[in-house]
Amino acid sequence: MGNNSWIKPGASRDAQREAKRQAVLQAGACLFNDRGYEQTSLEDIAAVLNITKRTIYYYVQSKEDILFGCHLLGLEFLRETMQQSQDEALPVVDRIALLIRGYCAWVSTDLGATIAMVREHSLSPERRHALRASKAEVDFHLRSLITQGVAEGSLRPCDARLVAAAVFGALNWIPHWNRVPDPVPQGEIAEQILQLVLSGMTAQN
Amino acid sequence: MGNNSWIKPGASRDAQREAKRQAVLQAGACLFNDRGYEQTSLEDIAAVLNITKRTIYYYVQSKEDILFGCHLLGLEFLRETMQQSQDEALPVVDRIALLIRGYCAWVSTDLGATIAMVREHSLSPERRHALRASKAEVDFHLRSLITQGVAEGSLRPCDARLVAAAVFGALNWIPHWNRVPDPVPQGEIAEQILQLVLSGMTAQN
Repeated sequence: MGNNSWIKPGASRDAQREAKRQAVLQAGACLFNDRGYEQTSLEDIAAVLNITKRTIYYYVQSKEDILFGCHLLGLEFLRETMQQSQDEALPVVDRIALLIRGYCAWVSTDLGATIAMVREHSLSPERRHALRASKAEVDFHLRSLITQGVAEGSLRPCDARLVAAAVFGALNWIPHWNRVPDPVPQGEIAEQILQLVLSGMTAQN
Repeated sequence: MGNNSWIKPGASRDAQREAKRQAVLQAGACLFNDRGYEQTSLEDIAAVLNITKRTIYYYVQSKEDILFGCHLLGLEFLRETMQQSQDEALPVVDRIALLIRGYCAWVSTDLGATIAMVREHSLSPERRHALRASKAEVDFHLRSLITQGVAEGSLRPCDARLVAAAVFGALNWIPHWNRVPDPVPQGEIAEQILQLVLSGMTAQN
């Protein structure tokens, strides 16, 4: 990413600033995922953006700030993704499929992958707590859908909490094995996971 | 863990040394999982064992040595677990079930969890390479079982590589959510994952 993407001509001052702050978060997320959070310095992030470390401090105060910002922005994108699956007019199985497809696409982005790859130890206890609460929302959403499906008989009886954990495990693990030079397209992964877990949830044996 | 477990009366000198080396690895694994690798020092590990940092250096040369030792010893235990599922007299579905149950029990131990929780960035490139080769063996084993099941018709057609990745994701994620004061017994988790993925693999719809 060179200077060209850093300067956004025509945008308002606030929009410029927010776009640049997000560019810092994106660059940070990418490096954290590839090299590890501890192995990445603010200098590394500045170098990728072709700016100075001093410029970075105009947008964030520390590396931990970047990590927390990545998590917050990532979860904001995830919430948008989740909204589709909240349409109560759709059958439960379709809503679960929308959630899994959306989550799979999201966890395959740099910001989404950071939440699945960088452990929370690197954050202060307060920030860790805030992050957990946001993650719990998504978990709760899938659990509710499973519970609803079991209650109406469209899914076989199961422990919704453990099944949701298994599904999120399959999804969160993607960046751990698919961040390679020639990755499997995320749509293919989503379809295989969907076939596996939806058949598994609906099987009547 | 106090001095009592550190001294093994009656054992040979070599057995004593190996038992103590393994105690260092176990203590390291536990702290790495709970606090994070970067957040753990050799002093922390020595404190848990009630020994000095100098004594630790008699068994390992560095923190990275402990991490690599954890990975090697962990994979050795996993290989023992895997052997049961290599019995070709058993149906493929039973062999997959043995592998999933065994892996679930293993990843719920401190050493097994370390492989799923501590990223390889902290290891030197040579060690990272060696570790990946060992992990690939386990992955290959499950893929082969799935491929064999599909070929003989006991499993529905699927992409064995992606389905194996989904299963390992569900399993490797366990220590990420179940290292809590009141964890779900690993046997219960294994049964829910088994029901989900075996029904999903065998469903004929």
